[in-house]
Amino acid sequence: MIIVMNKDATQAQIDVVVTELTAHNLQATVMQGTERIVIGAVGDERSLDAKHLETLAGIEKAVRIVKQYKMVSREFHQANKIINVRGVEIGSKQIQIIGGPCAVETPEQMDIAAKGVVSAGCRLMRGGAFKPRSSPYSFQGLGVQGLALLKEISNKYQLPIITELMDVRMLDTFLKYDVDIIQIGTRNMQNFDLLKEVGMTKKPVVLKRGMSATISEWLMAAEYIAAAGNDNIILCERGVRTFETAYRNMLDISAILVAKRESHLPVIVDPSHSGGKTWMVRDLALASIAAGADGLLVDMHPNPREALCDADQALLPEELASLVTASKTVAEAIGRSLP
Amino acid sequence: MIIVMNKDATQAQIDVVVTELTAHNLQATVMQGTERIVIGAVGDERSLDAKHLETLAGIEKAVRIVKQYKMVSREFHQANKIINVRGVEIGSKQIQIIGGPCAVETPEQMDIAAKGVVSAGCRLMRGGAFKPRSSPYSFQGLGVQGLALLKEISNKYQLPIITELMDVRMLDTFLKYDVDIIQIGTRNMQNFDLLKEVGMTKKPVVLKRGMSATISEWLMAAEYIAAAGNDNIILCERGVRTFETAYRNMLDISAILVAKRESHLPVIVDPSHSGGKTWMVRDLALASIAAGADGLLVDMHPNPREALCDADQALLPEELASLVTASKTVAEAIGRSLP
Amino acid sequence: MIIVMNKDATQAQIDVVVTELTAHNLQATVMQGTERIVIGAVGDERSLDAKHLETLAGIEKAVRIVKQYKMVSREFHQANKIINVRGVEIGSKQIQIIGGPCAVETPEQMDIAAKGVVSAGCRLMRGGAFKPRSSPYSFQGLGVQGLALLKEISNKYQLPIITELMDVRMLDTFLKYDVDIIQIGTRNMQNFDLLKEVGMTKKPVVLKRGMSATISEWLMAAEYIAAAGNDNIILCERGVRTFETAYRNMLDISAILVAKRESHLPVIVDPSHSGGKTWMVRDLALASIAAGADGLLVDMHPNPREALCDADQALLPEELASLVTASKTVAEAIGRSLP
Amino acid sequence: MIIVMNKDATQAQIDVVVTELTAHNLQATVMQGTERIVIGAVGDERSLDAKHLETLAGIEKAVRIVKQYKMVSREFHQANKIINVRGVEIGSKQIQIIGGPCAVETPEQMDIAAKGVVSAGCRLMRGGAFKPRSSPYSFQGLGVQGLALLKEISNKYQLPIITELMDVRMLDTFLKYDVDIIQIGTRNMQNFDLLKEVGMTKKPVVLKRGMSATISEWLMAAEYIAAAGNDNIILCERGVRTFETAYRNMLDISAILVAKRESHLPVIVDPSHSGGKTWMVRDLALASIAAGADGLLVDMHPNPREALCDADQALLPEELASLVTASKTVAEAIGRSLP
Repeated sequence: MIIVMNKDATQAQIDVVVTELTAHNLQATVMQGTERIVIGAVGDERSLDAKHLETLAGIEKAVRIVKQYKMVSREFHQANKIINVRGVEIGSKQIQIIGGPCAVETPEQMDIAAKGVVSAGCRLMRGGAFKPRSSPYSFQGLGVQGLALLKEISNKYQLPIITELMDVRMLDTFLKYDVDIIQIGTRNMQNFDLLKEVGMTKKPVVLKRGMSATISEWLMAAEYIAAAGNDNIILCERGVRTFETAYRNMLDISAILVAKRESHLPVIVDPSHSGGKTWMVRDLALASIAAGADGLLVDMHPNPREALCDADQALLPEELASLVTASKTVAEAIGRSLP
Repeated sequence: MIIVMNKDATQAQIDVVVTELTAHNLQATVMQGTERIVIGAVGDERSLDAKHLETLAGIEKAVRIVKQYKMVSREFHQANKIINVRGVEIGSKQIQIIGGPCAVETPEQMDIAAKGVVSAGCRLMRGGAFKPRSSPYSFQGLGVQGLALLKEISNKYQLPIITELMDVRMLDTFLKYDVDIIQIGTRNMQNFDLLKEVGMTKKPVVLKRGMSATISEWLMAAEYIAAAGNDNIILCERGVRTFETAYRNMLDISAILVAKRESHLPVIVDPSHSGGKTWMVRDLALASIAAGADGLLVDMHPNPREALCDADQALLPEELASLVTASKTVAEAIGRSLP
Repeated sequence: MIIVMNKDATQAQIDVVVTELTAHNLQATVMQGTERIVIGAVGDERSLDAKHLETLAGIEKAVRIVKQYKMVSREFHQANKIINVRGVEIGSKQIQIIGGPCAVETPEQMDIAAKGVVSAGCRLMRGGAFKPRSSPYSFQGLGVQGLALLKEISNKYQLPIITELMDVRMLDTFLKYDVDIIQIGTRNMQNFDLLKEVGMTKKPVVLKRGMSATISEWLMAAEYIAAAGNDNIILCERGVRTFETAYRNMLDISAILVAKRESHLPVIVDPSHSGGKTWMVRDLALASIAAGADGLLVDMHPNPREALCDADQALLPEELASLVTASKTVAEAIGRSLP
Repeated sequence: MIIVMNKDATQAQIDVVVTELTAHNLQATVMQGTERIVIGAVGDERSLDAKHLETLAGIEKAVRIVKQYKMVSREFHQANKIINVRGVEIGSKQIQIIGGPCAVETPEQMDIAAKGVVSAGCRLMRGGAFKPRSSPYSFQGLGVQGLALLKEISNKYQLPIITELMDVRMLDTFLKYDVDIIQIGTRNMQNFDLLKEVGMTKKPVVLKRGMSATISEWLMAAEYIAAAGNDNIILCERGVRTFETAYRNMLDISAILVAKRESHLPVIVDPSHSGGKTWMVRDLALASIAAGADGLLVDMHPNPREALCDADQALLPEELASLVTASKTVAEAIGRSLP
């Protein structure tokens, strides 16, 4: 922790700060500058809140040196975390493309979708049973019935599934249906009770970045899950909110790089929700792979025009297949592979 | 709904769009422009998703005309909604200042805080028993014990209380302790299951705006509560996330105006979390009142230096009293009053 | 300057940093922490670029302690700067409201506008001769002819004028016409050559904040003017760009507070360009005054429907008069006054 | 143009709107909906300002249908614009990587840099003679002397050069030194007088996107240049400003896609200024190529530690060479090439 004193801070004020630091087992060094007095405090500063310090008289600002996340940091664990989902690895040299419809709708839709996923060469399937919608009047998902359908398809096609958990009260049902990967959506990235609960299972968790979460907050949300005992966490960048209105969200391509540098967790990208438009999915997917993403989460629907949710961003099965082929070429260009 | 066709849309594509609109009971009018064909669709367009339409071939964009929120809109209910909390009105000509500590800590702290709230002239008290914290290693609140403490103080000083509900499983406990106003925090603004559940009670709800929620999304979140049966909703602006780093959040003063024009619900402001700094609270509070806010939610702590949470933004009891006095003068300048 | 070394920085890397700091006349103190080595550097760090330092091996980050602006800072000059424009003071206890049309159009329009300004009780007039427009096909202003018209009106009604300078080649013409206050628009806030040139005059300058400039960058832009020799600078907050689309720009009410705390320069607000809608002007104006603004810049047009520019945000003369009356009441509520 | 009337608009108000539209040679169609009356107006709506219309009584909002840019749009010119710079094509299947130092410093530096550019396989060189710096106390570039140096190097190594023009008064000097490509920097994207002047030359112009410009505003800025007669315009995405602080700017990878779809102009990317950190340049560059960029603008310095500007983002000559090799592989993976 570095404490910058006001220009006119008194010796008494400096003494109070030093006392406070010492009380928190930090060792203080007072440096007399030309314009300011700066106090350096070394030790485990996680026990001390920078904002708290700033309430002391005479302090201009207090700057934290050590990052707040620990268990999810690369410093804590150098090697890439590889997560094994029923034999499919996420976070290794091989890149995984997860395809499937935004929402589970009917057995027929799911069956055709699953066939499309398999024939495109993907080894994991997505599908939403519970849908977070901005409007209470929009389709909210099939619920438990959707989970059952997903599971059926999963078994039939040997495709591990990923689906979103919104309500903490549904966790037991998710475990009962043995969902393979639990998705925490962007709106729930800081639903801390939900994070703690999935942290108490051993299920792989895809943690989507909040709509305007900093990378640091995203990693702190992951830390909640890890701190509760579950380090099977996959980070998912899905675009953030900015002033631009030409597309749905701004895909933060740099976040892939930063998250992978700061953390050992795998990072996947959702190019469908980023752009929010079918025609953007392919290029955003290829860019994500070139930037180092460990996987993709792609909306695909047998008949986008009939989709009950996010119709405008779903690929057709044949478009997914074509995306997988193109992804393979780019992956190989940077020394990685696809199944 | 207005549908703008691509420059080179065919007659067949136009026909498909008209058929689709008609199928949704919308009446379509095709307008031949110099550069584009535009199709106007009138009727209850809530049944039709603009994005869904955009998946049809030949469509450049579809623009919604009617707003998605209905029950919380001023169109639906012209007069200001006034919410009565144990005799204290929110949303009337009288402005309410709600004071109290960010977190409930000890009986002594709460007792001094409550005395400060009363002597400042406030008629409602805030205090957090469950605290949403970015870090799992930060103080998470006293929990149920904090609720009990709050209730005790509430009874002793005849101060209706407001406190945050984070976990839907805690709602029954909140009802058991007869919390007067339930706060939904910024991180849970789109925790739709939580919104639906508080919507099934009759408790007044303070709905904080999400960190980067548009005003429209904020009103849609309120619509979730209203649609479930509870229209005792108080909107709370608390600053949004932007590129500026000189303070915590950017208080969106214009949101007060827009929310009150679009909706009949009362709008209050949290100047403490907006600026995130003690020295900013007073001026932001006065500006909010001048802009038309119906109330304020202000952090106050008997001893900010000892506060376990958000120490840097809490006022002292005497600062709160002074703020109330200043607020009264500004309120009267614009024709409103304080208790 | 505080330098945080990487976790695994070597002694040799530390030595290089210390040598570099010493070479810049900074005194280095090496602090051994539990997780990191931190080096404190005291002295005039303006000679050293933090980013430059970060290129040295083994450095995680370098944090600047001293702010980069100097001449415009309150530290440099404690008392409020008061700027006298032909007898009208800006920055004193008295608040100035500057009214007038967005664009100078015709002698008749300007005459009616000036009468409206005077009868509303304003003592300064605005009017654009050169207009920055997003589209090359929009009205670009009357140019020099507009300046002449403005000057005529200025003389006739004894109203000092403010008008925008976009092209550095026009400065001499502005001086020839003896424009009273030169406005630097939001799009030119970092047009450094323009800043240097107006810095070489003694004319009062209104410096509008850039569309997404941080307060610190805004003050650095002011520093360019001050460093060139002109400290007659008035800062003007006019809203910034965010994700919200319900209005034109987000008025950053907190920026008023921060700019006035960090700098001794007067701060005025443009409530017209902030909201971009007539109905928002009044409430935003009152909020700005309550927050501590030293003045307002308000669009007024005798006949907004005929306005060639920003028609949707101009007040009628009678609305300006009513705004001035309301502003006076709020100003007095916070211990200030209006002419 | 689509005009949505207020819920309670009167027939008289509707008539006024229709009259106004007709007066602008637009053909109006009134549609009676269940909740609103909507008026469709077809014809060349560029003559009518949506905001202007909104000042009429009874109008809720007016929505523009036709985009404002015309000459730079792909609708206007379907085929990709290819710009030939002394034999080097920008905008064709071949991707160009432009390398060189942020600032021209010394003959030695430039000589080594040029050798590095050539040996990396790049065919164009960058170098700043005039530098826009946030602080007046930072190095501002060598000015005209820098131009001379650049030209010398350009001749010696047969490398066409690109350099930034900040001050409109310097344009003649740029032409005299026969600069090959004129760069308009991010801070001057809406310096309309500068745009008009470079529009009157035939020189290729790199137009960097403004720090928080929408893609639409960026294209409108290009339209200024095109409307003045110069369509040799290269768009350059360089990251935008957001709330994220982990890096300098957020590279808007989606903007590449959208700009290329909306416009026929070539789009290049500056991965150096986007991330602002050396370690990010390579991955951002590869991602940009995968997303469809026509070129890159990359900071390279023979000795970054001695660089007078943006030292922290410059690659070494050997790193540039390695980047070019990697770029080639990715380019070929998507069916493009490098020289």
